[in-house]
Amino acid sequence: MRDITVFSGQAHPELAAEICEQLGVELHPVRLERFANDCLEVQLQANCRERDVFLIQPIVAPVQEHLVELLLMLDAARGASAARTTVVLPHYAYARSDKKDAPRISIGGRLVADLMATAGADRVLTMTLHSPQVHGFFSVPVDHLHALRELAEYFRQYDLTATTVVSPDLGNAKEAAHFARLLGVPVAAGAKERFTDDRVTISSVIGEVAGRDVIVLDDEIAKGSTVIELLERLRELGARSVRVACTHGLFAAGALKRIGDQPDVAEIVCTNTVPVHDQHPKLTVLSIAPALAEAMRRIHNGESVSALFDAQ
Amino acid sequence: MRDITVFSGQAHPELAAEICEQLGVELHPVRLERFANDCLEVQLQANCRERDVFLIQPIVAPVQEHLVELLLMLDAARGASAARTTVVLPHYAYARSDKKDAPRISIGGRLVADLMATAGADRVLTMTLHSPQVHGFFSVPVDHLHALRELAEYFRQYDLTATTVVSPDLGNAKEAAHFARLLGVPVAAGAKERFTDDRVTISSVIGEVAGRDVIVLDDEIAKGSTVIELLERLRELGARSVRVACTHGLFAAGALKRIGDQPDVAEIVCTNTVPVHDQHPKLTVLSIAPALAEAMRRIHNGESVSALFDAQ
Amino acid sequence: MRDITVFSGQAHPELAAEICEQLGVELHPVRLERFANDCLEVQLQANCRERDVFLIQPIVAPVQEHLVELLLMLDAARGASAARTTVVLPHYAYARSDKKDAPRISIGGRLVADLMATAGADRVLTMTLHSPQVHGFFSVPVDHLHALRELAEYFRQYDLTATTVVSPDLGNAKEAAHFARLLGVPVAAGAKERFTDDRVTISSVIGEVAGRDVIVLDDEIAKGSTVIELLERLRELGARSVRVACTHGLFAAGALKRIGDQPDVAEIVCTNTVPVHDQHPKLTVLSIAPALAEAMRRIHNGESVSALFDAQ
Amino acid sequence: MRDITVFSGQAHPELAAEICEQLGVELHPVRLERFANDCLEVQLQANCRERDVFLIQPIVAPVQEHLVELLLMLDAARGASAARTTVVLPHYAYARSDKKDAPRISIGGRLVADLMATAGADRVLTMTLHSPQVHGFFSVPVDHLHALRELAEYFRQYDLTATTVVSPDLGNAKEAAHFARLLGVPVAAGAKERFTDDRVTISSVIGEVAGRDVIVLDDEIAKGSTVIELLERLRELGARSVRVACTHGLFAAGALKRIGDQPDVAEIVCTNTVPVHDQHPKLTVLSIAPALAEAMRRIHNGESVSALFDAQ
Amino acid sequence: MRDITVFSGQAHPELAAEICEQLGVELHPVRLERFANDCLEVQLQANCRERDVFLIQPIVAPVQEHLVELLLMLDAARGASAARTTVVLPHYAYARSDKKDAPRISIGGRLVADLMATAGADRVLTMTLHSPQVHGFFSVPVDHLHALRELAEYFRQYDLTATTVVSPDLGNAKEAAHFARLLGVPVAAGAKERFTDDRVTISSVIGEVAGRDVIVLDDEIAKGSTVIELLERLRELGARSVRVACTHGLFAAGALKRIGDQPDVAEIVCTNTVPVHDQHPKLTVLSIAPALAEAMRRIHNGESVSALFDAQ
Amino acid sequence: MRDITVFSGQAHPELAAEICEQLGVELHPVRLERFANDCLEVQLQANCRERDVFLIQPIVAPVQEHLVELLLMLDAARGASAARTTVVLPHYAYARSDKKDAPRISIGGRLVADLMATAGADRVLTMTLHSPQVHGFFSVPVDHLHALRELAEYFRQYDLTATTVVSPDLGNAKEAAHFARLLGVPVAAGAKERFTDDRVTISSVIGEVAGRDVIVLDDEIAKGSTVIELLERLRELGARSVRVACTHGLFAAGALKRIGDQPDVAEIVCTNTVPVHDQHPKLTVLSIAPALAEAMRRIHNGESVSALFDAQ
Repeated sequence: MRDITVFSGQAHPELAAEICEQLGVELHPVRLERFANDCLEVQLQANCRERDVFLIQPIVAPVQEHLVELLLMLDAARGASAARTTVVLPHYAYARSDKKDAPRISIGGRLVADLMATAGADRVLTMTLHSPQVHGFFSVPVDHLHALRELAEYFRQYDLTATTVVSPDLGNAKEAAHFARLLGVPVAAGAKERFTDDRVTISSVIGEVAGRDVIVLDDEIAKGSTVIELLERLRELGARSVRVACTHGLFAAGALKRIGDQPDVAEIVCTNTVPVHDQHPKLTVLSIAPALAEAMRRIHNGESVSALFDAQ
Repeated sequence: MRDITVFSGQAHPELAAEICEQLGVELHPVRLERFANDCLEVQLQANCRERDVFLIQPIVAPVQEHLVELLLMLDAARGASAARTTVVLPHYAYARSDKKDAPRISIGGRLVADLMATAGADRVLTMTLHSPQVHGFFSVPVDHLHALRELAEYFRQYDLTATTVVSPDLGNAKEAAHFARLLGVPVAAGAKERFTDDRVTISSVIGEVAGRDVIVLDDEIAKGSTVIELLERLRELGARSVRVACTHGLFAAGALKRIGDQPDVAEIVCTNTVPVHDQHPKLTVLSIAPALAEAMRRIHNGESVSALFDAQ
Repeated sequence: MRDITVFSGQAHPELAAEICEQLGVELHPVRLERFANDCLEVQLQANCRERDVFLIQPIVAPVQEHLVELLLMLDAARGASAARTTVVLPHYAYARSDKKDAPRISIGGRLVADLMATAGADRVLTMTLHSPQVHGFFSVPVDHLHALRELAEYFRQYDLTATTVVSPDLGNAKEAAHFARLLGVPVAAGAKERFTDDRVTISSVIGEVAGRDVIVLDDEIAKGSTVIELLERLRELGARSVRVACTHGLFAAGALKRIGDQPDVAEIVCTNTVPVHDQHPKLTVLSIAPALAEAMRRIHNGESVSALFDAQ
Repeated sequence: MRDITVFSGQAHPELAAEICEQLGVELHPVRLERFANDCLEVQLQANCRERDVFLIQPIVAPVQEHLVELLLMLDAARGASAARTTVVLPHYAYARSDKKDAPRISIGGRLVADLMATAGADRVLTMTLHSPQVHGFFSVPVDHLHALRELAEYFRQYDLTATTVVSPDLGNAKEAAHFARLLGVPVAAGAKERFTDDRVTISSVIGEVAGRDVIVLDDEIAKGSTVIELLERLRELGARSVRVACTHGLFAAGALKRIGDQPDVAEIVCTNTVPVHDQHPKLTVLSIAPALAEAMRRIHNGESVSALFDAQ
Repeated sequence: MRDITVFSGQAHPELAAEICEQLGVELHPVRLERFANDCLEVQLQANCRERDVFLIQPIVAPVQEHLVELLLMLDAARGASAARTTVVLPHYAYARSDKKDAPRISIGGRLVADLMATAGADRVLTMTLHSPQVHGFFSVPVDHLHALRELAEYFRQYDLTATTVVSPDLGNAKEAAHFARLLGVPVAAGAKERFTDDRVTISSVIGEVAGRDVIVLDDEIAKGSTVIELLERLRELGARSVRVACTHGLFAAGALKRIGDQPDVAEIVCTNTVPVHDQHPKLTVLSIAPALAEAMRRIHNGESVSALFDAQ
Repeated sequence: MRDITVFSGQAHPELAAEICEQLGVELHPVRLERFANDCLEVQLQANCRERDVFLIQPIVAPVQEHLVELLLMLDAARGASAARTTVVLPHYAYARSDKKDAPRISIGGRLVADLMATAGADRVLTMTLHSPQVHGFFSVPVDHLHALRELAEYFRQYDLTATTVVSPDLGNAKEAAHFARLLGVPVAAGAKERFTDDRVTISSVIGEVAGRDVIVLDDEIAKGSTVIELLERLRELGARSVRVACTHGLFAAGALKRIGDQPDVAEIVCTNTVPVHDQHPKLTVLSIAPALAEAMRRIHNGESVSALFDAQ
């Protein structure tokens, strides 16, 4: 297997450029053409033969466009005789479709994993899947990073003596507990009753938050309804300050402004797994490009990726 | 295997309704939800267990949305224990990606066929594939209809004594020759030099068109550039009248108006394999719902589909 | 497809017999031979040709023996021309291996699902998977039942006015919340720190339990260490009474006696998804045979299985 | 991956020898045994372990013998632990079976591609497939060369000022147009009506041929009936001279003599993709061994194969 | 699944006709066309949709022709929407390639089994495989009949009081022992040293044959060299009479005449699993059409095939 | 591909250690954990990325435990990005399940081969399969060694002038003949009637054994009933001395003592393909670690493994 060859789809070229800079390799262009009948054609603009090819494409909105583009890139790399093709998937939106909570629906997270394998993915490098079980949806090897280290390192700048990490719901509570351990602080969690995708009620917060400096931690923030509801409860319960942190800052439907404009929110912190198009004075975006680049380097060199996280 | 159960995606519900009316069966709804992170979820709204399920979804713009919706529908039907799932694909846009005419591209027509099989397609019913070889891209059985019968029946209302069928390029010439035989008239063809997707030049027309009533026949019209160029040549060569016919009337980028507004175009005829959103006084849309319905009935009953076309 | 033919492996013949009685069909024997070299051979003792075959085998201790026996039964049914083979898996022990929480381990829940498909499983009927995502590990259709209805029906005999459902950890909290809703009572949860498989500490209970009649609900009880720790916390927090409920009563290493002998435990309730070999005066075992039988009947007849749970 | 190891089946050892000479590598023998029951056994006569194995075998008459021999060679290479096995397929006869033009037939070109993948083909190197879509029949990467460069280079020795390239039918017209562009001359095409495999009528030639030096170009000549019919039309239309060129000179059923004995045929030019057993004073055979050898070298070294054709 | 539809390839239409007569169903024709380039095309001449299709084709010389024809028939049946396709394989020549007794050869029996599955075989009905392990080469269900019943019934007409069954080599000795048990007589075996395919020496016969009426039993006779050698030994050892019996009478290279002309051979008995083209006054051919027809009937009706052999 | 990384399961760590010593590489530990619910978890204790991984695990009692452990190890190696994973299978117990000698059983040797491929086996190195056809059950490349060389070398220390090799039954007679050739002595065989797994009768010995020094050779000895029966016959027939040899010394149910305590048995010789737990003064265990180590070295280096056996 010869040198790394890295391509980026349309989803997040800035991240790809930053990763390549970290790696000290060239980012090769992809020509994307849209035909009159709305079909896509991608052309990888560098020789792939016997190369260790990495395709960087978070699955973010417009999701279907970016997904099909990625599938075409995978098939093109296979047809072009790549020695191995790794999908770098900083955000995997379909991971949220991870169970069959209604009859006659697809478990999209499994289906899309199978589609990628069909199209030619040999392995996947991803970050903070919505649930850790989604790892098992893939038939190809997966390296599953998370951004808790990057987030924890950032928050260590603050005085954490009165800090509590709060998970908006019980589903994310284990992740929040892990994060709290990294910071050496206690954890609490909202007990969320979710009725529909739009309408969410937080019935209560289990754990102590009165007079605490709260860091709300979620894996992703999309519409932000859960966070907004949680903020109300935290106010009622007398939290002293609130910071909001997440790995994937999707911020759909004006979520960034809605959360940022809450007066008791001191800061919103996310990473650049997805492109953040909105801006807000309270927003801080941390880069996970160094982590992804180091993982890619180790994947290419056959070094342990898990060892990467041992020394923390 | 029990009764037919038919679902329609978002691509062309009018055609689906017409087919179901022909078949005398109910068209079952599909709930399509778009989550805050832009992922789709489809729910088939009727029991699929042990049913003979048909999913009607032409792959038309927005192509990527309709394709992923179809893949989710397929997976949902499989998970819901359909006895057999047939994709009814009146138009297969990715059939145009049928060869590797540049390095490091995907042959999209093959890839998407494989994706459908991965998602759970047991068989496919389609119409007028861009080239007949695309049939061989599918690993599942395909019934491949064409609309030449419907088109020919329509044109038989006219006096055809001075009529010539003209294919805009050599690639479609065999199909045009077949159509001409159905009408009992001669055939001619443009010799197209295609430089890019946008810019096309017809260098010449091979065959006699001076003083003839021309029927231009193509499999599909997207931007219509080829037809517009051909019309210029036909004018120069002294054609007496021009009618334009195709199976798939995609009419992208104002093509319908551009062609229809040419004064020497008497009529534009297409079928309803795709939804025609634009309108034009010269446009006639023929329905292929009866043909698809009859094919579905025969597929379900285990009767010969090829026999369907023997009696013409 | 012709009549149902049901076989039971060695894991739980009593449950199989009860299911067949409910269905009014014969339970067919399986000859299991162990050769001198410790290899197994199973022979299905009834004609399988074109039958709708169901193989009932919970994956319980000795897990490896029962798993390989099931794989051999599946392959035998396929080789014997079964029209369809459904694995009835009332308990799927490997579902606990659902994520990669250490490097260089297997996600056993996915691997074993793939092994069953390789051996010939056409579909799976299972109950209360350790996490709902495990559904997505299977490439074949899965009907996933749970026993909350049966458990709720049983507890409705009691005065529930001061009752709280308590989940031993946050991971099962959603399931506990669902169960609490069925009973119309509030929910609480332990915040468990799990250090090793043997040693568990409950740091706290989030939610109100003082003076309450607690129903501890877990999906399964194996060694019971978590429950024992929780009981201590509940005592400290002043719970009025405790009942312990779970779907899968594995009761390994004397767990039944350890929990049952706690004086403040009024009752232990589980179902018969697994054979309960130990006995205890406080133990009540509910049968899920009627639920599995009804699901099998509906699978065979092509009726909706999800509809089965609509009317509750 | 270690050194190239090249084997040749029985179909065309002369070509294989020439390719190996070009590459400067040894051509390893294959022992072919035919048992008393007419089954074949092939033994690859050199170590294949971790080698980059190339199997050279055009699929030519006796087609079924050569095909099964190739499948056995592929399986033998896989079983012998080849690192990668590339089929070098200078002629792929089953590419003509590329569509379903009658009910209840196989699309042989797709089936045989699947058989090769089943037998162990990792990739294919082929030349001038009957239609470019056949590329998409393969699930493994394909490098698809054509011989137009070699043919064009040969014809440039002649005075081409009055030359026209003529395709015998419309199906091959695009290829002929490409060839004409290489020579800088115009193109014309026969409009063939094919009734049966044996009986062909050319109804007309579209394009100007009177007084022209015609080069008839087809992808392959088997029985040559089409060419013979075309020659008659060219005579009627007053062509000045005729040369006949093709990539695959199959020359079945005395075709070489039939065409060569036409007094107005000045020359017949083909390549050595298939062994030419007949001889004729007017026949010129060009070697494509250098092109195949260079492609094999690039495949082995991971260099771009498409780049090979950029500099023309 | 609807009615049986039976097709026969070119290998043994007489057997197919006899089977269909037994079943009382029509034998449908297959059109076989050989193109000018020596490729085959088969067209199944009856509707296959949702039918239970049986394709009768022993793999006999010319083996490669008959094999590829069968693969094309399988693919055609799949593409034509057969509900199920069963290969009826009265003789499977490649079963002799059942082990890897030299490096870098294919185990042809496994490869060809995989090719049939790739081409669309859903199940196989076969007779007297060269070794019983070949059954395990197939990934699809196999019904494996043998002809010992038919042979035994025939030989029961004779006085068997001094009869011994002799296997020509140790490999077939178990089969011969089974046959001897059916006849109630003792068994003996030659200890064969096989040097090449052509040259065989029988070193000894183990078991008593002096003064016995010997029935030599082999699974198949191809060149017959083994039998000829055995006859010499039997003569030396003083056998009283010799009859030769086998299931598959391939009789290659004049074997029938060579064996039949031996004065001490009283009779040669085989079955019609393969077409016997030669004739000899000492030859008796038994029909296994009734056995195959009954097995096909049971396969179609979902009745036990093994039960078919219980009552003997 | 980088360096060899060798792991051993629980089945035979002594053999693994000896192999690694021969190879001069480290044997890496595997952590095996058994959860409270009896599920296994294995963790490979060394980095596997891009390594040439070998997993040493004979399938011996407890067979199901060792088999599932191996499958988990395979999946773990794949998930950990091994470049290639080779199963070293010194004994493959399920090879005895190599045919379908009763209806509705599994051919376990094929099923387990498929399970290993599903779990991630890229190739297999094994020794003395129960029948050579079992090689064909694997879809991955197999190197199949035998131990006859090691056994023959050992026996050459004795005076062999009056020695005869005796196979206990006809099925193993070819192997015994091969062994006899290596020693330059004659061969004989028992004609075994096997009624059940427990009860065996040797009806006769074919070949001369009176006054001979007999070496009984079998592929494996499990319960040893066959050998015990044979010894009785040999006594009756006047054999002068008896030595018993086999590759796989399973010695179940006290077989070693039962055979060793026979006064006329001079010696029992087996190899260490399986761990021999019992001891007996007459037992000699030969090591095949050097043979396996050399094969592994050659597999890793891409040298011919068959060549390894040429020089004998």
